[in-house]
Amino acid sequence: MAMSPLFPRSERAILLHAQIQEFMHTQVLPAEAEIIGFNAPIAQRWQISPKLEALKSQAKALGLWNLFLPAVSKLSNVEYAELAELMGQSEIGSEVFNCSAPDTGNMEVLHLFGSEAQKQRWLTPLLAGEIRSAFGMTEPDVASSDATNIRCDIRQDGSDWVINGKKWWTSGAMDPRCEILIVMGQTSADAPVHQRQSMLLVPMQTAGVTIKRALSVFGYDDAPHGHAELHFDNVRVPLDSLILGAGRGFEIAQARLGPGRIHHCMRLIGLAERALALMVQRAKSRVVFGRPIAEHGMAQHAIALSRVEIDQARLLTLHAAAQIDQGGAKFAKRAIAMIKIVAPSMACKVIDRAIQIHGGAGVSQDTFLAHAYAAARSLRLADGPDEVHLASLAKMECR
Amino acid sequence: MAMSPLFPRSERAILLHAQIQEFMHTQVLPAEAEIIGFNAPIAQRWQISPKLEALKSQAKALGLWNLFLPAVSKLSNVEYAELAELMGQSEIGSEVFNCSAPDTGNMEVLHLFGSEAQKQRWLTPLLAGEIRSAFGMTEPDVASSDATNIRCDIRQDGSDWVINGKKWWTSGAMDPRCEILIVMGQTSADAPVHQRQSMLLVPMQTAGVTIKRALSVFGYDDAPHGHAELHFDNVRVPLDSLILGAGRGFEIAQARLGPGRIHHCMRLIGLAERALALMVQRAKSRVVFGRPIAEHGMAQHAIALSRVEIDQARLLTLHAAAQIDQGGAKFAKRAIAMIKIVAPSMACKVIDRAIQIHGGAGVSQDTFLAHAYAAARSLRLADGPDEVHLASLAKMECR
Amino acid sequence: MAMSPLFPRSERAILLHAQIQEFMHTQVLPAEAEIIGFNAPIAQRWQISPKLEALKSQAKALGLWNLFLPAVSKLSNVEYAELAELMGQSEIGSEVFNCSAPDTGNMEVLHLFGSEAQKQRWLTPLLAGEIRSAFGMTEPDVASSDATNIRCDIRQDGSDWVINGKKWWTSGAMDPRCEILIVMGQTSADAPVHQRQSMLLVPMQTAGVTIKRALSVFGYDDAPHGHAELHFDNVRVPLDSLILGAGRGFEIAQARLGPGRIHHCMRLIGLAERALALMVQRAKSRVVFGRPIAEHGMAQHAIALSRVEIDQARLLTLHAAAQIDQGGAKFAKRAIAMIKIVAPSMACKVIDRAIQIHGGAGVSQDTFLAHAYAAARSLRLADGPDEVHLASLAKMECR
Amino acid sequence: MAMSPLFPRSERAILLHAQIQEFMHTQVLPAEAEIIGFNAPIAQRWQISPKLEALKSQAKALGLWNLFLPAVSKLSNVEYAELAELMGQSEIGSEVFNCSAPDTGNMEVLHLFGSEAQKQRWLTPLLAGEIRSAFGMTEPDVASSDATNIRCDIRQDGSDWVINGKKWWTSGAMDPRCEILIVMGQTSADAPVHQRQSMLLVPMQTAGVTIKRALSVFGYDDAPHGHAELHFDNVRVPLDSLILGAGRGFEIAQARLGPGRIHHCMRLIGLAERALALMVQRAKSRVVFGRPIAEHGMAQHAIALSRVEIDQARLLTLHAAAQIDQGGAKFAKRAIAMIKIVAPSMACKVIDRAIQIHGGAGVSQDTFLAHAYAAARSLRLADGPDEVHLASLAKMECR
Repeated sequence: MAMSPLFPRSERAILLHAQIQEFMHTQVLPAEAEIIGFNAPIAQRWQISPKLEALKSQAKALGLWNLFLPAVSKLSNVEYAELAELMGQSEIGSEVFNCSAPDTGNMEVLHLFGSEAQKQRWLTPLLAGEIRSAFGMTEPDVASSDATNIRCDIRQDGSDWVINGKKWWTSGAMDPRCEILIVMGQTSADAPVHQRQSMLLVPMQTAGVTIKRALSVFGYDDAPHGHAELHFDNVRVPLDSLILGAGRGFEIAQARLGPGRIHHCMRLIGLAERALALMVQRAKSRVVFGRPIAEHGMAQHAIALSRVEIDQARLLTLHAAAQIDQGGAKFAKRAIAMIKIVAPSMACKVIDRAIQIHGGAGVSQDTFLAHAYAAARSLRLADGPDEVHLASLAKMECR
Repeated sequence: MAMSPLFPRSERAILLHAQIQEFMHTQVLPAEAEIIGFNAPIAQRWQISPKLEALKSQAKALGLWNLFLPAVSKLSNVEYAELAELMGQSEIGSEVFNCSAPDTGNMEVLHLFGSEAQKQRWLTPLLAGEIRSAFGMTEPDVASSDATNIRCDIRQDGSDWVINGKKWWTSGAMDPRCEILIVMGQTSADAPVHQRQSMLLVPMQTAGVTIKRALSVFGYDDAPHGHAELHFDNVRVPLDSLILGAGRGFEIAQARLGPGRIHHCMRLIGLAERALALMVQRAKSRVVFGRPIAEHGMAQHAIALSRVEIDQARLLTLHAAAQIDQGGAKFAKRAIAMIKIVAPSMACKVIDRAIQIHGGAGVSQDTFLAHAYAAARSLRLADGPDEVHLASLAKMECR
Repeated sequence: MAMSPLFPRSERAILLHAQIQEFMHTQVLPAEAEIIGFNAPIAQRWQISPKLEALKSQAKALGLWNLFLPAVSKLSNVEYAELAELMGQSEIGSEVFNCSAPDTGNMEVLHLFGSEAQKQRWLTPLLAGEIRSAFGMTEPDVASSDATNIRCDIRQDGSDWVINGKKWWTSGAMDPRCEILIVMGQTSADAPVHQRQSMLLVPMQTAGVTIKRALSVFGYDDAPHGHAELHFDNVRVPLDSLILGAGRGFEIAQARLGPGRIHHCMRLIGLAERALALMVQRAKSRVVFGRPIAEHGMAQHAIALSRVEIDQARLLTLHAAAQIDQGGAKFAKRAIAMIKIVAPSMACKVIDRAIQIHGGAGVSQDTFLAHAYAAARSLRLADGPDEVHLASLAKMECR
Repeated sequence: MAMSPLFPRSERAILLHAQIQEFMHTQVLPAEAEIIGFNAPIAQRWQISPKLEALKSQAKALGLWNLFLPAVSKLSNVEYAELAELMGQSEIGSEVFNCSAPDTGNMEVLHLFGSEAQKQRWLTPLLAGEIRSAFGMTEPDVASSDATNIRCDIRQDGSDWVINGKKWWTSGAMDPRCEILIVMGQTSADAPVHQRQSMLLVPMQTAGVTIKRALSVFGYDDAPHGHAELHFDNVRVPLDSLILGAGRGFEIAQARLGPGRIHHCMRLIGLAERALALMVQRAKSRVVFGRPIAEHGMAQHAIALSRVEIDQARLLTLHAAAQIDQGGAKFAKRAIAMIKIVAPSMACKVIDRAIQIHGGAGVSQDTFLAHAYAAARSLRLADGPDEVHLASLAKMECR
């Protein structure tokens, strides 16, 4: 679907859309194989491709930088959403424009809730793309979809906070450029349920922070970004590492959610669009039983269903973005739950159909599909499994 | 769902929306049981409820009348679409506002393509709600989803057209108020494929027109509207009964399609919304195994999925309407194919879930659900089965 | 599918299978239209077709009679299951062989638990096919899938039981030949949960038994069998009307379940097979876009999926039957829950695909499909909705 | 499902079943982590775990060896099928008993069609478990699901066959123990379509055979078994390397199919059973929102559906095996097509649900699930994608 002229956008948004589209097609997609290939040798597995850094400089120079942050970009959520879709076509797309998770969420948190000192120390280099960050929330030993389960312990001891606990799926923590973590943990087990958690800034190099291991997603370690299991053993950070205030972790997490969901979903829609394009291309070029695959009814079914599912997911996500623009994340709460249910599952279905039409090539390293599937599949779990959002949407519906 | 902020509407459209919503809730829905019940006695099966006629007069007096026709209503397709959703909540809703199929399509055809004489003779009383009409296209002996299959024979004989053939699923032809048919048939078997068909105005009372039988949908005969099988044996109408010109039937059919699809789909969305509301109400009020159904996970799944499917279908349909508004039905061709695939099938799924949560009451006459299911299910066939639209969408995607 | 080599059968069972197949094809199916048509005139709606009675006499004379009852037939559950499939192809098939619900279940109950007097009075004429019966369990005001909800009140008063309450979905109660009801109600609200209910024999003509109305299933009233709502107002029956003993209703209901489920599921499989056969026939004979439907990929998908779903459901049902044969209904509990989940839902899917391939004819009275769909759909609710059986199967799995 | 006592088996089969079950639980499953872990260091990636070899010796000593081959095992296909299910629970299970693909198929081919010399040279050490083999059929440049597309060129030149072409998904070719390939290629482009292909024995070490690269499945390289892309450049083998005769490749491929499909499907059923067991265990032990996952309705739905799907797939596969036992692979053709459609797709669904219930652990290396998913998903493509088998089943149904 071309950018629909139906939804009013500023001229600037339209221009940025064209620029990013152009940059994706002329710079990012052609460089994708080289950048991913850079990490193939074991010795370079967790290093950063110079080509990627070069693309980032280029994008920055063009002003295609930090557009996720409304304060910087002056874009509405609807306007940015359509840029996120473009970036999402490639697993490296978002980073090129300094718009990749979890940095975007972390920068938003610092922007909205950080002290001046915190901003200067961490937000400035993050916005400059000089360092990267990670976010520690999920824990291996509890069902973290119920955030009240979080057990990581944070206590004050003199002029320090002392952290003990385990986090996993802390994506990006193994990136060599990652310098700062935001860690959510419990500062007060006795407070009302939603005031027990706090968020702390913890430099990666702090004593007691250990990268225990790299987690894989369907065989992919996603280096050099990666997904870490981190252990915190008597990790000490000064009192001013606290963001916003003790007991306000849940509140920050909520604020982080809305726009972040839009971004994630639009990236998935971009990924699904690319999968559909590849599916169509393969279906047209490959002949089975005397006719191109594209003329076989079952393939037509796969293609057509993919189109209706993608377009519906996009409209729903833009609708959620428009509701945030209109009344804020709380106002858009129901729509935000809905896109979390719809987009990852849609992407899984579309990519799976593209895999099917590709045969063996589809599951192998010869297309981006299998890796995209792994990414989309894990997003049916990250940030709460589908079931949690379905139950919560049903409850809203029953009110 | 409140009106989506994605689609701007005029103040007048917003006002009309409120008025129709009010009229539906205070007048139409409360009268539904009485109006449908009027046809229960066999002797009254094919007569018209006086209450229905009274509601029509009321709506007409309030100016809530013929809003489907842009020339009358000055509404965009997006704006009217949201009214159609409201009307679609009840099987009698659209007629109350003189906005029910197939009259809407027939009036559009006459408005766009009728001669002045044809308009005066048929369009004027139709717009006044004094008579009703039917449309004869589908034939029992051929797969009519491929319109080139149509065999009904129309030949010129002196100053008459002579019609021989069979039509079925001619809805509304058995309504006692139905006075005029638009019949599609073949005037030239040798012309290029899309110039073989023509459309004729045939008064119901013309000699040789026979209502062969009433078709049922699942077990419903849908009286007093009904679905007729009609036979045409040497039916003669004067030459000026032709609409637009010989060989232009296909062209008229195409023009009739776009907005008609929007209307049908929005009505289905209204039906689905009502089914979801009933499902929620039942789930909250009925206790099984110690808890209200609404607290059981499988019911929550049914409710939440229904919500995301309805909202996505609505946004897709509004998007198609916006494309018609922007560039006409041809421009919106792909979007129009998409909603035909999505809306009837979505409505079937949502209504089926509502039936399931109602238990035996759901399949019986005690709720509107079973009848609504039958209606929605038949719309996966009417106007081309899903498969035809899936194949055609896939082809557009592969271009 | 020919009989599966997985399940051994006796020569006699194989012979009976051939005889019933022959009888269905030469006698029952050809007479179906006439028998159903007999009830078309309103005046005959609730009368019995003489042709049906004639077929019953014929079947009885051939010894194809009461084969559902192992004591009569000496067939295993597996062996009878395959006969039930054959009978199930037509809505009138089972009755022809005196093997239709709810009489089969009622006869089983009388056979297993009836006193000698009860047997003589009711079982004998039922086995002879002279009278018919109904079973009153489900109630309109409570979720009856949780049998402990049943409220119909039965109290002893002198030498009588006095019944007050409402039942609905009492199928067959409006059949003019129906003379006896088995009614489940509460004799002791204070007993342990599963000892509160009892079963009583209540002659239809007893004072205080009122047929309140006929329920419809998707527009079908299923006359002359029908589904009644019955009210019981101070209905008095003598003390010896009790079956087995007070508080033993639940126990009887359980025993009634196992083989009954097999029968229901096999009938549905027969129905689905017939739907598939019709689908194939239509797909081969109807041409769209230049090729028979059978050569279009989406139709092939529908046909192939139907085949794999039917065959799997049959094997699962035969497996459940084999488990009953081996260790009784309790031993087969899990398998019996499974077929209740699988068979009705499979039949709905297969019949729905057959409808889709038939276009308008599929939802109309021109094929048996729409009515079969209504029947199959209601079996996803009767005897507990899918959700109850899914939850109960999951619990067994978690033990 | 315990081994169902319903299907008659020999006492020996029952004993073997118990022995293999025991061996799996006491030897194989406990050693799985160690054996898979052996390949974790890059240097050992393509070497063979001594523990695996030790288990093989143990199994061999117990006579749990080569049971896939009826001539050796004297087991029926039904009997062996249930052993294959047990072995299939672990990715290393089948190899332990010398029953893993593609060796099983290759040994069958040699057993049925090999010359005495071929048998002595290759079958004997394969049966002894001393060497391993691979099978080259699928090609990267054509849709190999249509076997007539195969292009690999084989021509006679003096006393040699000369092979030129590319194969991929040649699983096991990179195993250090792999010494022999069976290669399918075209010996006669002008022959009738099904007589163009031949099969050749090609020792891995032959000049001109190059392992071009290792293919991955999702992110797994499946070392040390692996999936190779092989190039053949003027590869020369003596004339007596031909199996059965020139132009008989298609015939051999067909014969190889039947039992092989049973094995593959039963292994998938074993995998799915293990996934369900893990799902249940997780659901019982993990608490969310105050209750174990096992008490949440959506999880119950997942568990119950998995159970009914697994049991149906198993019964269908056993049915296919019984048909082969009864009338040979040709007689069982339809059933064999059906299980290819059902089993891989069922396994994907069940494993996916298990992943979902595990949250992040499900996609990571912490359970066997993600890898099992990748394996099951690729089996929806290997040996022809689902679509090919659906179309072919539909055609059989329409005859």
